[in-house]
Amino acid sequence: MKIAISTSSFASIDRTPLELLKVNGLQVVSNPFGRKMNEEESINHLQGVDGLLAGLEPLNATVFKKCPQLKAITRVGIGMENVDLDAAKKAGIKVSNTPDGPSDSVAEMTLAAALVLSRSILPANAALHQKQWSKIIGKGLKNTKVLVLGYGRIGQKVAELFHAFGAKIMVCDPIIQQASLNSNFQLVGLKEGLSNAEIVTLHTGGNQPILKSLEFESMREGVILMNSARGALIDEVALIEALESGKVSSAWLDVFPEEPYSGRLTEYEQVLLTPHMSTYSVQCRKDMETEAVNTLLRDLGV
Amino acid sequence: MKIAISTSSFASIDRTPLELLKVNGLQVVSNPFGRKMNEEESINHLQGVDGLLAGLEPLNATVFKKCPQLKAITRVGIGMENVDLDAAKKAGIKVSNTPDGPSDSVAEMTLAAALVLSRSILPANAALHQKQWSKIIGKGLKNTKVLVLGYGRIGQKVAELFHAFGAKIMVCDPIIQQASLNSNFQLVGLKEGLSNAEIVTLHTGGNQPILKSLEFESMREGVILMNSARGALIDEVALIEALESGKVSSAWLDVFPEEPYSGRLTEYEQVLLTPHMSTYSVQCRKDMETEAVNTLLRDLGV
Repeated sequence: MKIAISTSSFASIDRTPLELLKVNGLQVVSNPFGRKMNEEESINHLQGVDGLLAGLEPLNATVFKKCPQLKAITRVGIGMENVDLDAAKKAGIKVSNTPDGPSDSVAEMTLAAALVLSRSILPANAALHQKQWSKIIGKGLKNTKVLVLGYGRIGQKVAELFHAFGAKIMVCDPIIQQASLNSNFQLVGLKEGLSNAEIVTLHTGGNQPILKSLEFESMREGVILMNSARGALIDEVALIEALESGKVSSAWLDVFPEEPYSGRLTEYEQVLLTPHMSTYSVQCRKDMETEAVNTLLRDLGV
Repeated sequence: MKIAISTSSFASIDRTPLELLKVNGLQVVSNPFGRKMNEEESINHLQGVDGLLAGLEPLNATVFKKCPQLKAITRVGIGMENVDLDAAKKAGIKVSNTPDGPSDSVAEMTLAAALVLSRSILPANAALHQKQWSKIIGKGLKNTKVLVLGYGRIGQKVAELFHAFGAKIMVCDPIIQQASLNSNFQLVGLKEGLSNAEIVTLHTGGNQPILKSLEFESMREGVILMNSARGALIDEVALIEALESGKVSSAWLDVFPEEPYSGRLTEYEQVLLTPHMSTYSVQCRKDMETEAVNTLLRDLGV
């Protein structure tokens, strides 16, 4: 059997997941472009292929029609917006993802961003590299009110880590009940949470904006806003207005409506920007890639 | 009674500690310079003063001789290197500090630095502000070996927080026994710790270098080195050699042999530099200042 890999960084850190494919006797075709493929490139890449370890390239009815041998797709990651699940079902293709792998890594990156912004580390470091000694008193996380929007695997891990730093946790998620929460955490509605939080962090799914002008109006003056979930969840124009007015004092964005991102937020020094790399840690890549290989082998009956 | 305050930022964030002095009927003289005072300025500031909430200005036999009314000094902070304790004893002056206030804040800043360096956040952010989308795979803290050098109040808090992120903790402190450690933590000698650690973080006292050329030689290739304890603990020339060779991949320094610092380390982008601000958080300032006021009131018998 033949396997295609489309994530450009697969096994670049640790070869164990690739070797796991080879010891199972599978032929492997790697991504020849070193970046996300378009539809035509994907179709060429998938000729004669039985299984795919997928990135974020378009996987739709057209692709499936032109690649009739394809039997199983495993996303190396969580999001499946690039896969037309109905079309896959009709074509008899099994589709899976790796929900467990990235949680620790994304939560770790979220705390990194919260600490950097809350303790004013970027301006202090930039000044001292210019030989300017300017102490800045940051808020810190202890006793700081944090709103965790979305309480799935990642949101839960994020809440626990904030709690370890002494933050006060509010959780907003329509499918969660207070009884199922850590008793130190408070379940809130969106408006209540936004009007009280000093830090807002997004960990929901979805492709519609949750935070638009109206929601920014509800927020506390000087709030820190963080998004590592989905680029579409924040209305960028409304965010820029809130940065200009000081309503949002600083922000971290790891995801964008279009990626690679090169938009207006690059002009704001108080915005920490990372290129969709909250899952880019050595441990996480190894965990996710291993989970993806095992899932694909299972789906192919190997 | 009359109280002098020499820390330039006292009560600038939250006025509660200052009001606590005033409701106890004390007259308050603030630092008129907005920076650390020299010996002569201190002597002028302390004329007719009974108690001092002290910063890092020199407090020695000369000062005590010229300020005979002074009965008690409380350092707003931990370090007491600027106070001649023998001379204070001879002059009948009680000297205290605030050992509990800063632990959470310093530990929080230490984790901030570890996360920033370990997840390559600075270069990723700088590149994206230049509209360059360059993902970097960082090591992350999960399963990373961390050596905590010095296991006092701050070292213990730092170790607990690293543990919450899934790091493997080694502790090096001559006065600690394995039996008194969290069973997940390993007590090691300095050489053993340095040769295994992927992150080394300093939380000891002292004014002599612990890390010199010989110790850098023992370290793992690509180690991350962090110091928020005392500037004198690291031989700067040896550190620069280790940065040049790649032995130390990145570092965080919050303390320096001379402050304000403007030395050669400002030329290294892989070194995160903060101006002795690991205790500069809102909560910490309030906690420390309140602890200092209560201690001074007690020492003055108010």
